[in-house]
Amino acid sequence: MPPSHGRTRLVDVAALAGVSTATVSRVLNGKGTIAPETRQSVLAALDTLGYERPSAPASSAGLVGLVVPELTNPVFPAMAQTVETLLAQSGYTPLLCTQSPGSTTEDEYIETLVERGVAGIVFVSGLHADTTAGRERYLRLQERGVPFVLVGGHAPEVDVPQVSPDDAEAVRLAVRHLVSQGHRRIGLAIGPERFVPARRKRAAFLAALVEHGLAADEAGAASHVVSGLYTVEGGRAAAAELLDAGHTGLVCGSDLMALGAVRAARSRGLRVPDDVSVVGYDDSPLMAFTDPPLTTVRQPVQTVCRAAVGALLTEIRGERAPRSELLVEPELVVRGSTGAAPAGAPPPAPEPTSPSTPPPAEGEA
Amino acid sequence: MPPSHGRTRLVDVAALAGVSTATVSRVLNGKGTIAPETRQSVLAALDTLGYERPSAPASSAGLVGLVVPELTNPVFPAMAQTVETLLAQSGYTPLLCTQSPGSTTEDEYIETLVERGVAGIVFVSGLHADTTAGRERYLRLQERGVPFVLVGGHAPEVDVPQVSPDDAEAVRLAVRHLVSQGHRRIGLAIGPERFVPARRKRAAFLAALVEHGLAADEAGAASHVVSGLYTVEGGRAAAAELLDAGHTGLVCGSDLMALGAVRAARSRGLRVPDDVSVVGYDDSPLMAFTDPPLTTVRQPVQTVCRAAVGALLTEIRGERAPRSELLVEPELVVRGSTGAAPAGAPPPAPEPTSPSTPPPAEGEA
Repeated sequence: MPPSHGRTRLVDVAALAGVSTATVSRVLNGKGTIAPETRQSVLAALDTLGYERPSAPASSAGLVGLVVPELTNPVFPAMAQTVETLLAQSGYTPLLCTQSPGSTTEDEYIETLVERGVAGIVFVSGLHADTTAGRERYLRLQERGVPFVLVGGHAPEVDVPQVSPDDAEAVRLAVRHLVSQGHRRIGLAIGPERFVPARRKRAAFLAALVEHGLAADEAGAASHVVSGLYTVEGGRAAAAELLDAGHTGLVCGSDLMALGAVRAARSRGLRVPDDVSVVGYDDSPLMAFTDPPLTTVRQPVQTVCRAAVGALLTEIRGERAPRSELLVEPELVVRGSTGAAPAGAPPPAPEPTSPSTPPPAEGEA
Repeated sequence: MPPSHGRTRLVDVAALAGVSTATVSRVLNGKGTIAPETRQSVLAALDTLGYERPSAPASSAGLVGLVVPELTNPVFPAMAQTVETLLAQSGYTPLLCTQSPGSTTEDEYIETLVERGVAGIVFVSGLHADTTAGRERYLRLQERGVPFVLVGGHAPEVDVPQVSPDDAEAVRLAVRHLVSQGHRRIGLAIGPERFVPARRKRAAFLAALVEHGLAADEAGAASHVVSGLYTVEGGRAAAAELLDAGHTGLVCGSDLMALGAVRAARSRGLRVPDDVSVVGYDDSPLMAFTDPPLTTVRQPVQTVCRAAVGALLTEIRGERAPRSELLVEPELVVRGSTGAAPAGAPPPAPEPTSPSTPPPAEGEA
């Protein structure tokens, strides 16, 4: 709070926190008894309005490391913020370890954190999600007695709590949505297959095509899947292949891939959603602001992070959290990138370099 | 690299790194002499393609803390990734300390990092950028002999290297662009005035309005500035005030505020850019994908981060980096949210709840 915190500022903070100005004063002066949640609301309101907090001795219960693969996909900053808030509310100081090509590796971070006496580690989409990566790093970490949890991937060989969004259900939601809009040529643009979430999405996709009568069997359905990198460019390349093969509905492995798929469609002169429907995955921040606003399957970030932090704190206390993998239900968020399938057979793919206007979609629902 | 790294994978990695497969083999096997930059390219290619790196002993030159205010504004994850890559290339292990409302504070992070024997700290838009926040935390850190640099804000009382984007130039670029498109009613939607960047942008904006003959003097120009929070909602509220006063060109303090300004215009039935032009600030990731693609002033993230890390490493070596504040030039990126000013007087502001279609803009250039 600035030097002379006048009446007005107290009122602003109290209004935002939903408490009385007297309560705000008690928190600022550190006097009186205040319920922890109330105190937390007032501190959050101070932070939101950009005022300094009352000075208080830093009494951290310890460090907790949070290892994420990168920050380019906006879902990872969102998860990092959520986990950090939860850890801080439990008295822990979070340290975020992020990677980028050519930067510090997961193993280097593990060493650094363990050397610094970390109380526990949350791994989000770490090497545990890569089926070709060794598990020794995690087994060694267990031997050293460091509690940790694995998020967004599954390594059954490692005996620790594991939490993931339900990737299979995410794909089922997306396919069902496209089928209900009349799409019959549905393709999946997905990340590299050695990653657990991509593998799970692929398996669910093959089963869903068969279930909806869009493929005779799973072997036949496999031709509707293209793998690429989890980036805008990766999505664009994978979508280009699927569009060339006449698909009108594209299910993507991430929102960034979906944005690339929209670009691939437009570079062929196809309109989204009139000619091609695109479904993303993550519902990362700002996806309501894209052109068109992206229909996507929302990762249950809050629920996943709460479950992961809860399990980690249980383990840190020396108790045993459940070991069966916790799968959290995602939800479909319908925005503007999906619509009724175009009438008739999809137009043959035009030359990528000469965008032509396809015939207007007819018979929309 | 997965267990049996076949010929194909070597070829992929070599192609991406722009080196021969023999060089990739040498890096993987740790044999032969390889220039550090070449090794770095190969490691980056392995990371990008998602292969595991060759195991190597972690030999960190030490920890460096990176304190950022939050990760919701996508420019902060982008800066964090850039700083981390630069630190890792210099052999340091970066630890990212981010804040969110109700979470760990800057002071708590400072204590944690110093207790863990950090080699140095980079503060990005920290409390040094808040003119109402005390400087003791930084002076105390200096007494304790911890090298640090301040980025994105200016605290002349603190005798350390300081680097910022040139906020004044950013606003001049935006105003000049709008004036060249015929706008005469230009408003500024900016963050809270106690922050150095907002203060600098405001001062430059007042001077620019006078310079372009859009206000008689700076006191008169002040009515064209509205402060709000640095968020989509804050931008929407500030823009609503400016639109009610008949402004057709809006300069915003961040891309998120600009997205809010677009929403404010549309909720009044105004079209962007036909009726209202909006300029953002940051050019954070994904702004080319928004509706409309956002015209914005790009923060020189790479240059700012390189200068900051360079100065920090100099200080860590015990040498003295220059103390005069380094201001880095931003650049204007013109996309789809700005266009020619609408002809004639701006339409009176309609009721916010009943979006009406304003008359089509005439006489566009």
